[in-house]
Amino acid sequence: MEPRRTVWLEDDGVHLIDQRRLPLELEILVCPTAEAVARAIEGLAVRGAPAIGVTAACGLAVGARELPAADPETFWAGLEQVAARLRRTRPTAVNLFWAIERAMARARQALEGGGPEAARAALAAEARAMADEDVAANRAIGRHGAELVPDGARVLTICNTGALATVDYGTALGVVRAAHEAGKAVSVWVAETRPVLQGARLTTWELARLGIPHTLVVDGAAGHLMRTGRVDLVLSGADRIAGTGDVANKIGTYSLAVLARAHGLPFYVAAPVSTVDLGIPDGEAIEIEERDPAEVTHLAGRALAAPGTPAANPAFDVTPHELVTAIITDRGVVRPPYGPGLRRAVETAGGPPRRSA
Amino acid sequence: MEPRRTVWLEDDGVHLIDQRRLPLELEILVCPTAEAVARAIEGLAVRGAPAIGVTAACGLAVGARELPAADPETFWAGLEQVAARLRRTRPTAVNLFWAIERAMARARQALEGGGPEAARAALAAEARAMADEDVAANRAIGRHGAELVPDGARVLTICNTGALATVDYGTALGVVRAAHEAGKAVSVWVAETRPVLQGARLTTWELARLGIPHTLVVDGAAGHLMRTGRVDLVLSGADRIAGTGDVANKIGTYSLAVLARAHGLPFYVAAPVSTVDLGIPDGEAIEIEERDPAEVTHLAGRALAAPGTPAANPAFDVTPHELVTAIITDRGVVRPPYGPGLRRAVETAGGPPRRSA
Repeated sequence: MEPRRTVWLEDDGVHLIDQRRLPLELEILVCPTAEAVARAIEGLAVRGAPAIGVTAACGLAVGARELPAADPETFWAGLEQVAARLRRTRPTAVNLFWAIERAMARARQALEGGGPEAARAALAAEARAMADEDVAANRAIGRHGAELVPDGARVLTICNTGALATVDYGTALGVVRAAHEAGKAVSVWVAETRPVLQGARLTTWELARLGIPHTLVVDGAAGHLMRTGRVDLVLSGADRIAGTGDVANKIGTYSLAVLARAHGLPFYVAAPVSTVDLGIPDGEAIEIEERDPAEVTHLAGRALAAPGTPAANPAFDVTPHELVTAIITDRGVVRPPYGPGLRRAVETAGGPPRRSA
Repeated sequence: MEPRRTVWLEDDGVHLIDQRRLPLELEILVCPTAEAVARAIEGLAVRGAPAIGVTAACGLAVGARELPAADPETFWAGLEQVAARLRRTRPTAVNLFWAIERAMARARQALEGGGPEAARAALAAEARAMADEDVAANRAIGRHGAELVPDGARVLTICNTGALATVDYGTALGVVRAAHEAGKAVSVWVAETRPVLQGARLTTWELARLGIPHTLVVDGAAGHLMRTGRVDLVLSGADRIAGTGDVANKIGTYSLAVLARAHGLPFYVAAPVSTVDLGIPDGEAIEIEERDPAEVTHLAGRALAAPGTPAANPAFDVTPHELVTAIITDRGVVRPPYGPGLRRAVETAGGPPRRSA
């Protein structure tokens, strides 16, 4: 049977679709320990800011099971170490830190009330609640965003922002899906998204299963498609959004935003409010993950360049808010000036971190 | 011994560096027939507008040897068929058509004076002359262009515009090389250039051999590098330049030009005057080659996307002249308005096609 979600918590560990093997194989990876979860995140078996957040929360629940049921403070110190390990996996997507912070707050509360066993139960419940909330948030993003997608729209997307980037349904691709479900004709230009090819491997796979027309292109084709009048709007996800509206997302996103502006096309960002980071002054404060240059010089173990070729592999870039037409959140569509709108959206959601007391 | 040139004519056929095998193997492909030459061009064993032009001229010389030494008109009809086959290989780079036209004019002259044997000798001599002229033109481009490259410049390039794209020395990469040879510190951001990865495979290979510092990046990183102040200028080659200064070049070039403009960076195009096509009104008239979508969906026989994924593979795009800071030709640097400057450069060169009478 096919998994209904990208990631979920079971008694024997965290289960997730191994996205390194898609589209050729649909395989479930079982991570029985928090360390295995951390490695799955680092190695991109699971990726996408919302999915990473929920996976980390699931990892914390699994890590809590691994800890001996010692006195509360010893247990807490162990849990803090698990949290620190999970935080070290990837620096850019803020959902990771948000999810860990939220789960830890819940665990602390439960620990004080009922000891380690209560904390374990609370962490499992919290991870499952966050997964359910993620799906609900994505459906809300889809509903709000679909109104911005005209009938017949030709959408350009980057990376994968579909069900696989979340627990289910997707963010930017969820908007496309919601427009499609609402009966609108919509088609998608899928930018392959080097180096890891999430567009080529994951987005096309999802769109084919949804029956949404799509065409894969290399990242360099975006400008040409816009100039020749074949794109109506750009839809992107986000790994972190500063309170100013500056957006960190997959490398190449900023180029698309500049191109969209040059061609008078809307550039929309779709993300849950858990992606908004009010704790930083602007996008310049977002740490850009530098990943292994081998992702650029090699593909599936095969060398693309001569041995020893120097390469740089910044995994994300920052799009200044001036280039963002609107940010589609689960709390509604936020338009410039972003400061007040994003603050309101986050506060509606209960503030960071959300307490599901 | 290593070949000194990318392509050359021998008694047993056209010899060329098989660029499909680089950087992992340096192998010489021998094309004993005009048909083999045509397939080498179609299959990208040889690519780069100037190299394609000379290869086609060499192919014509080989094709002339294959034809029976019949009466002049029968011989000419056969040669016309060879020319037609070579013209069908690739539609965008104008150097192909320019070289064939020039060689055919020379062959016609010789045929009328001395019959098939004279035409054969003339075609071989013409192909060799064009090869020598290409190298001289590239060195001139390098000399003119190097003056535009400041000491310490960090250059962003796309595709391969080095020795391998020409008979030797290169166009845009020749400018980098000339600046380096003039003692300037210069470093290169090499855009990998999907789908065929000429940047990753060929440009890095050439720069390593020349000892010029370089860093490979994915195409999507260009905007990020510019926004974070790590690029001083963009240097591109060209497959065809309209008299207006509109430039057809590798897919992704237009995006770089838009990004350069948005960041106030110069966008220079380097090409010999044989790349200028005064016979078309503007860049919109340039046919953009659509190549096999398998170049996007597969790499070295390995599927990157799910089987059956629809893909588009426009191999080139057009950059409007408004975005071009200057065009560096073998006859000097041409600046806007391009109309008069390009016409003068072409006329200085003897007009299209050049006669090497």
